[in-house]
Amino acid sequence: MSALPTAVRIVEVGARDGLQNEPGVVPTATKLQLIDGLADAGLRHIEATAFVSPKWVPQMADQHAVMRGVHKRAGVRYGALTPNLKGFEAALAAGVDEVAVFGAASEAFTQKNINCSIAESLKRFEAVLEAAQAAGIPVRCYVSCALGCPYQGEVSPQAVADVAAAVHQMGCYEIALSDTIGVGTPEQTKRMIEAVLKVVPIGKLAGHYHDTYAQALGNVYASLQMGMSVFDSSVAGLGGCPYADGASGNVASEDLVYLLQGLGIETGVDLDRLATVGSFICAELGRPTRSRVAQALAGKRAQRA
Amino acid sequence: MSALPTAVRIVEVGARDGLQNEPGVVPTATKLQLIDGLADAGLRHIEATAFVSPKWVPQMADQHAVMRGVHKRAGVRYGALTPNLKGFEAALAAGVDEVAVFGAASEAFTQKNINCSIAESLKRFEAVLEAAQAAGIPVRCYVSCALGCPYQGEVSPQAVADVAAAVHQMGCYEIALSDTIGVGTPEQTKRMIEAVLKVVPIGKLAGHYHDTYAQALGNVYASLQMGMSVFDSSVAGLGGCPYADGASGNVASEDLVYLLQGLGIETGVDLDRLATVGSFICAELGRPTRSRVAQALAGKRAQRA
Repeated sequence: MSALPTAVRIVEVGARDGLQNEPGVVPTATKLQLIDGLADAGLRHIEATAFVSPKWVPQMADQHAVMRGVHKRAGVRYGALTPNLKGFEAALAAGVDEVAVFGAASEAFTQKNINCSIAESLKRFEAVLEAAQAAGIPVRCYVSCALGCPYQGEVSPQAVADVAAAVHQMGCYEIALSDTIGVGTPEQTKRMIEAVLKVVPIGKLAGHYHDTYAQALGNVYASLQMGMSVFDSSVAGLGGCPYADGASGNVASEDLVYLLQGLGIETGVDLDRLATVGSFICAELGRPTRSRVAQALAGKRAQRA
Repeated sequence: MSALPTAVRIVEVGARDGLQNEPGVVPTATKLQLIDGLADAGLRHIEATAFVSPKWVPQMADQHAVMRGVHKRAGVRYGALTPNLKGFEAALAAGVDEVAVFGAASEAFTQKNINCSIAESLKRFEAVLEAAQAAGIPVRCYVSCALGCPYQGEVSPQAVADVAAAVHQMGCYEIALSDTIGVGTPEQTKRMIEAVLKVVPIGKLAGHYHDTYAQALGNVYASLQMGMSVFDSSVAGLGGCPYADGASGNVASEDLVYLLQGLGIETGVDLDRLATVGSFICAELGRPTRSRVAQALAGKRAQRA
């Protein structure tokens, strides 16, 4: 048996990465109820919104109201995505605890998404990092396409390690290795992490895995075996997959918590309360949950009734 | 990195375990098209039907027509569930390549399902094993509730090992350790297999995992790390979960094949052809697939179109 971490920090990204990829705009009051519910279910790290242009991401246009309206719980970190200095300054003014920037390990993805090279894209958030350092705000960095790219296909572990090393040196306190399209499998995940570990210590890495091809929890398990102890997830699997209609995106928080509980790993999360929050937001969105655990729990409840 | 097996045999149970747990009765011609399609997709071991009373399992009432109607492909083993001697004799007459019997590691489950103790239940298929041995027909055995029971909850690894040892001594060539309600997690799976390995060699074990709580592929990965190389699955996740309405049951063959391909493990299965068979049977049943891989592949196709 491998020695797995005894505790895991879950970074709940449903309110940002999730809702940003759902059709339609969710009312601010609903978002606040979602975020408060997540904190009450025991999540200690919540990405609440994104300080991006409402022209590009209308779902996040109420970022100030969300960040200001949250009933901040003691011990909970509320983060926001801030891709540029303007976004960072707005997030800071709104009382964010930490921010996140967004890179990629694929040249094709970076060109297609922000029309520049990987190296140029990293240069662009230097200003955010400087300002954050001056303000004492920790910066997290997503590295997309860590296990594959929708445009170029394969992404080498070395390409991921290069970007991870760069953002680590720039001062990011945590690097979320992101399987943006959910194509990775466990041994590939291990090889990728192994390459990154040559340049960044395990304590600074997080796994952000999508469940598009049902591999997310296997990849989490493989990552735990490598000593990783921070994972991103989205309640009810909010978000879906922007690269395949109707497919799953972010791994569901309920499924992740179930796995970790089964492995005897502490998360601080109450699974039943979390599932209740998932039911709430799915009802608001008018769509079924993407969490198999939530489906099973609901099925059991229906049978008992 | 752990050394995983280089090849895996998949036991496709959709036509039996799957259809048996779907509402409604599927026409024989559809079943034959399903089974032939699975063989053409590269599956080499197919459980085709069950020789059980049509009074109890109306979905399998056409077992003779199915077993006789299949276009047998060279190198493919066609099996059937035969819980008693009468069923075995009928299966033998219909030209089955191998048969399967059905036990459980939970006293509560055995009492509830067949109204006797585990020990008595094993006695009941002694006759099948004797007749099969005389006819030169290999017998497989399912051990249900290997990771948990819907009635008694926890099932100890020792209880699974005891049943596995008994059916191994009785002459079963393969023992499918079955997570009937899909509650197990990877380290628990390893502990269970570890206990069984004290009494049965790894080459005689198979993993039959349900995806009800999204853990099946993690459990497969954990089992591969223990050296296991035979896994059961069901195309499109046919079957659902009889213990939780609307929840998933058998792990989807498409999801399993995707995992194994990603791990570089040979299966002989063509994933695209398999997904086509899954689409066919889902259309016939009038319900969406339970395979995330099939959903993702369909989503990608829709986007390209």
